[in-house]
Amino acid sequence: MSLIVQKFGGSSVSDAEGIKRVARRIIDTKAAGNDVVVVVSAMGDTTDDLLDLAAQLTTNAPAREMDMLLSAGERISMALLAMAIDELGEQAASFTGSQAGLITDASHGMARIMEVSPQRVHRAIERGYIAIVAGFQGMSKETKNITTMGRGGSDTTAVALAAALDADVCEIYTDVDGIYTADPRVVSSAQKIEKISSEEMLEMAASGSKILHLRCVEYARRFGVPLHVRSSFSTHEGTWVIPDPDDKITIQEGEPMEQPIISGVAHDHSEAKVTVIGVPDIPGKAAQIFGVIAAAQANIDMIVQNISTQGSGKTDISFTLPMTEGKRVLDALNTAKGEIGFEELEYNEEVGKLSLVGAGMRSNPGVSFTFFEALHQAGINVDMISTSEIRISVVTDADKLNDAVRAIHTAFNLDAEVEATVYGGTGR
Amino acid sequence: MSLIVQKFGGSSVSDAEGIKRVARRIIDTKAAGNDVVVVVSAMGDTTDDLLDLAAQLTTNAPAREMDMLLSAGERISMALLAMAIDELGEQAASFTGSQAGLITDASHGMARIMEVSPQRVHRAIERGYIAIVAGFQGMSKETKNITTMGRGGSDTTAVALAAALDADVCEIYTDVDGIYTADPRVVSSAQKIEKISSEEMLEMAASGSKILHLRCVEYARRFGVPLHVRSSFSTHEGTWVIPDPDDKITIQEGEPMEQPIISGVAHDHSEAKVTVIGVPDIPGKAAQIFGVIAAAQANIDMIVQNISTQGSGKTDISFTLPMTEGKRVLDALNTAKGEIGFEELEYNEEVGKLSLVGAGMRSNPGVSFTFFEALHQAGINVDMISTSEIRISVVTDADKLNDAVRAIHTAFNLDAEVEATVYGGTGR
Repeated sequence: MSLIVQKFGGSSVSDAEGIKRVARRIIDTKAAGNDVVVVVSAMGDTTDDLLDLAAQLTTNAPAREMDMLLSAGERISMALLAMAIDELGEQAASFTGSQAGLITDASHGMARIMEVSPQRVHRAIERGYIAIVAGFQGMSKETKNITTMGRGGSDTTAVALAAALDADVCEIYTDVDGIYTADPRVVSSAQKIEKISSEEMLEMAASGSKILHLRCVEYARRFGVPLHVRSSFSTHEGTWVIPDPDDKITIQEGEPMEQPIISGVAHDHSEAKVTVIGVPDIPGKAAQIFGVIAAAQANIDMIVQNISTQGSGKTDISFTLPMTEGKRVLDALNTAKGEIGFEELEYNEEVGKLSLVGAGMRSNPGVSFTFFEALHQAGINVDMISTSEIRISVVTDADKLNDAVRAIHTAFNLDAEVEATVYGGTGR
Repeated sequence: MSLIVQKFGGSSVSDAEGIKRVARRIIDTKAAGNDVVVVVSAMGDTTDDLLDLAAQLTTNAPAREMDMLLSAGERISMALLAMAIDELGEQAASFTGSQAGLITDASHGMARIMEVSPQRVHRAIERGYIAIVAGFQGMSKETKNITTMGRGGSDTTAVALAAALDADVCEIYTDVDGIYTADPRVVSSAQKIEKISSEEMLEMAASGSKILHLRCVEYARRFGVPLHVRSSFSTHEGTWVIPDPDDKITIQEGEPMEQPIISGVAHDHSEAKVTVIGVPDIPGKAAQIFGVIAAAQANIDMIVQNISTQGSGKTDISFTLPMTEGKRVLDALNTAKGEIGFEELEYNEEVGKLSLVGAGMRSNPGVSFTFFEALHQAGINVDMISTSEIRISVVTDADKLNDAVRAIHTAFNLDAEVEATVYGGTGR
């Protein structure tokens, strides 16, 4: 008998029909001989409705009360889901984050999980119940207040429970049927990935792939939880995200365990580029700039320092950051302009980021050449470059990004017609 | 400095404007130098909306899950109210029933309060916060599950907290400005009662006065909590419900503490009358009938056993009960027909109950005469009678009930024009 943790998002339980469909899905899993723990998000529009109500009262709600308010959403969806399961003849019990032992720090709205003590969940499944747990919420160890976890919180709840309960798999149900080699809306020949390592998935998520949140993948990787990302509308296998490429976890007997060179192409339209022009080329200036940005609580992504123009004693520093943080950072830098001594700021939201991810590129030196040659052939200018051991990212003009994604997808033989050559050992 | 517990019902917080109005009201109380603990119900239609959602999934929801679902309603209203107070410049913190230490038994949907341990509420007010507590909900001591308290639950929460915190008064805000000598919709000359004893209020509530729930009045009486029933739309004094008529609690210096003979007239259209005809007139038959009714979990109110018709060896037994329980009781009695040996059942929903309540009737023997004479003059037939030390109730035809209420209200000089004569010492 396996223990399976299943996570259903708000779009899967947006109305009574959705809740019934999810209930049947859960019961099928139980009927196949598994213990089932379910993590559920708030119904479709509930969170937006609650935020609208709050906005009618204040533009500056205390974070503690906002968490209390939003936590009501999962109470509703989880109780309704338990009722739907009961109606279909199985026993179910719902648990709030605090009842399920999800203990967090006290950072309202973006709480981090500190420990998981799911004794009540454990007892429920021992008694033959299906346990339904509220996603996204927990209780602060320090203040005993109710907290919410922010973006990706429900996925992270599911993974944390799976780790604490030593579940065999954590299934993340979504409205697509898995992770693709590129966004199918951009690359029509994109293929579903059958299996990807946590490490690669981490790079994909960090590079803009929206299906799994970075945080959930990090957690799964750290605690060795296999993820199965699949559609709540079909029973097809989705994409397995395997914690360690060297792990002996076998999805299907006889399946080759080689790593493909390239897992996929991610892209991201949500970043902006800032260039600080005419920075005095003396030690400590970069640290000063990034100190100002850190004080503004902004997250920067890629950084490029240009070579100092001969004899000018000045240099330019460019970086990318989420568009939503652009104004805050510009304001902070302008305030510190005299102190830092730069000449001017350039700000550009018309940029896009493309990332090629694959564990196989470690041992395949030709990858960079193929990558830049493909961009060159497609007439795409590269503005910034950053790399990790298993990722190459570039910034291009926003209107060239989709062309770039397609060119790279084709260059690495990721297109569906040539599926067989994607996997490792081909030398590409 | 006083500690005031204020309870606001769902109609007071049905939208953002209502929540803002209530928030200002609370802040005014705090600004007047009081500590304030607020108990709030779910917003206007929330409970109905949640029940509708559940009804789309099942007609037989597990009680535990129904409580989990409904408890979301107060989470929403209390967090929003805390935000509205914060926006107006005072600090507020909201607490669920379990956070506020409202420990109940495990009877889902109709839990009884077993203990109140409001340490967190106490600490919040010590730190200068306004504490907002969810009405209607608690946590089972035994199962640690979330429970709801059923009808009157929010009022009872407020009284229980007032008792545990040793509050000076528990203010129950409603959409009317107090308790009236009769329902103002029936008797246009009905007057607001300034002060009434808990004992009388108990009889009024038990006799159909809808403003305060019986259970809340019982609790207030037992723990000596003064209630102040008042309107959330005005700052006028409402009606004080004083735990013991001999208590030294003085609402206003110099005010006379005499009891009025009669406090008011309550009426009730929600009962039905059952007559069991042709019951063998031998010992134990009444016990057998009421045993069957008790097994059907029905609450009966008035009981009349008719005098046995000379020589027949048969008698009739009549009783009233809530209309909603009528069918269940008829079914139970019909099932036991052979065993009990009665001839037939009569069922009548076209009845009404009128009750005259007043602690002063104990020492005023003329009350019964005035009462029945007034009904006689108004041409109203009395079908059943029941009395306590401070109450006379009669059952009449439903279509005569309002006439009866007006006749009695006038006969006891309760009409507004003659207000002065209502109070004690007049000999009426």
